[in-house]
Amino acid sequence: MKKVVIIGAGNVATHLAVALQKNGFAILQVFSRTEASAKKLAELLQTTFTTDLNHIDRQADLYFYCVSDHILGDIIDRFNHTEGLHIHTAGSIPATIFSQKRTHYGVLYPLQTFSKQKELDFRTVPLFIEANNEQNKATIEEIASLISDKVYCINSDERIKLHVSAVFACNFSNHLYHIASELLSESHLPFDLLMPLVEETVQKLKSLSPYEAQTGPAVRNDFNVLNKHLQSLANDPKKHDLYKLLSESIIQTHSDKSNT
Amino acid sequence: MKKVVIIGAGNVATHLAVALQKNGFAILQVFSRTEASAKKLAELLQTTFTTDLNHIDRQADLYFYCVSDHILGDIIDRFNHTEGLHIHTAGSIPATIFSQKRTHYGVLYPLQTFSKQKELDFRTVPLFIEANNEQNKATIEEIASLISDKVYCINSDERIKLHVSAVFACNFSNHLYHIASELLSESHLPFDLLMPLVEETVQKLKSLSPYEAQTGPAVRNDFNVLNKHLQSLANDPKKHDLYKLLSESIIQTHSDKSNT
Repeated sequence: MKKVVIIGAGNVATHLAVALQKNGFAILQVFSRTEASAKKLAELLQTTFTTDLNHIDRQADLYFYCVSDHILGDIIDRFNHTEGLHIHTAGSIPATIFSQKRTHYGVLYPLQTFSKQKELDFRTVPLFIEANNEQNKATIEEIASLISDKVYCINSDERIKLHVSAVFACNFSNHLYHIASELLSESHLPFDLLMPLVEETVQKLKSLSPYEAQTGPAVRNDFNVLNKHLQSLANDPKKHDLYKLLSESIIQTHSDKSNT
Repeated sequence: MKKVVIIGAGNVATHLAVALQKNGFAILQVFSRTEASAKKLAELLQTTFTTDLNHIDRQADLYFYCVSDHILGDIIDRFNHTEGLHIHTAGSIPATIFSQKRTHYGVLYPLQTFSKQKELDFRTVPLFIEANNEQNKATIEEIASLISDKVYCINSDERIKLHVSAVFACNFSNHLYHIASELLSESHLPFDLLMPLVEETVQKLKSLSPYEAQTGPAVRNDFNVLNKHLQSLANDPKKHDLYKLLSESIIQTHSDKSNT
């Protein structure tokens, strides 16, 4: 049975630790700088925790780093331990962040939007892995395959593109829903009204590509409607500029294709 | 039994006509300038069709205009018939487009993204209605309630805002999926990989507002990741500018709120 230390106690740490434990891994310890978070996750896993990097258990086989990108480097430096396999979970950080400090290392990047309060079937989460050599890659692949049905090997450059694409598809589309909800509230209409439309937009992607599924005034080159909409957003420069740039991008995307 | 003429033979015309027929309305005729489209929809409804505005049946009680916004005015002008109740289905055109040409008129705007090839339960489609007087409004409300469970009365100004919000939530989010699919294909990864993420992003909206559900580097003010992502898009100005503007909008949205 592999012994695991979880470094971090946020959304990714929580979902990953639970999935590992369910599949027979022994979670030795949770580390977080924030005592309340460390304690909460340790209680959920019925294990121990520490808030001191010097007290991290050195007997583990696997160290998973599930912390914010901007503190990862610092934690790797200050937790000075070269044994075991060290795996980070960040989309936009190369595996080589470990290269000067560890012998065995790699990446396991889960492509999903996690919320602590919302349960999620980890088996459906695509995992993207990388390692510093073939043996470590085989080990990480084996671990990943135990907790998810979808495991892919990609390098750090591909992973950053994947992360950017996820930002567009998830973070940015969610922001568009927020803008829509603001516009609706100006007419005293609830966001719920848009849910059938939002869900159908996603359902369509099961039978059509996003290119084929595109609808709306921009793809129809309906400048009459586009101008009316821009006019209605004139007193809200942020929404006006986003409407303009997104419409131009749709028009350009679809004219490019028809010209080729 | 109310007699109906359907003007237009596109996605909205098809789904609306089928829903009306299912609920006991007699579809007398389909008009479309394109013979193939008119014929196809007429065959589906087992009714007659015409491509000549002068041959539209003048015995109908209801005329539904399901045509592109930019030709609606011209069709109203050229189909010179004042009897019956005339209803357009456009999000961004005021009811008053009929005012000089018809006695009884209104709007029935279905908020959904329709594809001819994809069946859809019309009862779940929110319908937004308006009319030139209370009596016509009551008639349109009665018709709408027969074919949908969600009927709302809003005026033309509110409807245009609703349409703009639908463009953000549906058309623009779909374009972001397209951008994501292009980025993935650069790494030879299929768009399918993003589907669990895209679906979970929408599922979250059932328990959280889009504001609460926001995740990603921009809402965390993670400029390290934002700059890496912008750098990775440097050779694609369109995607770069969209990434920048959307991230700035998320940062601004969430800083505004924390300051108030």
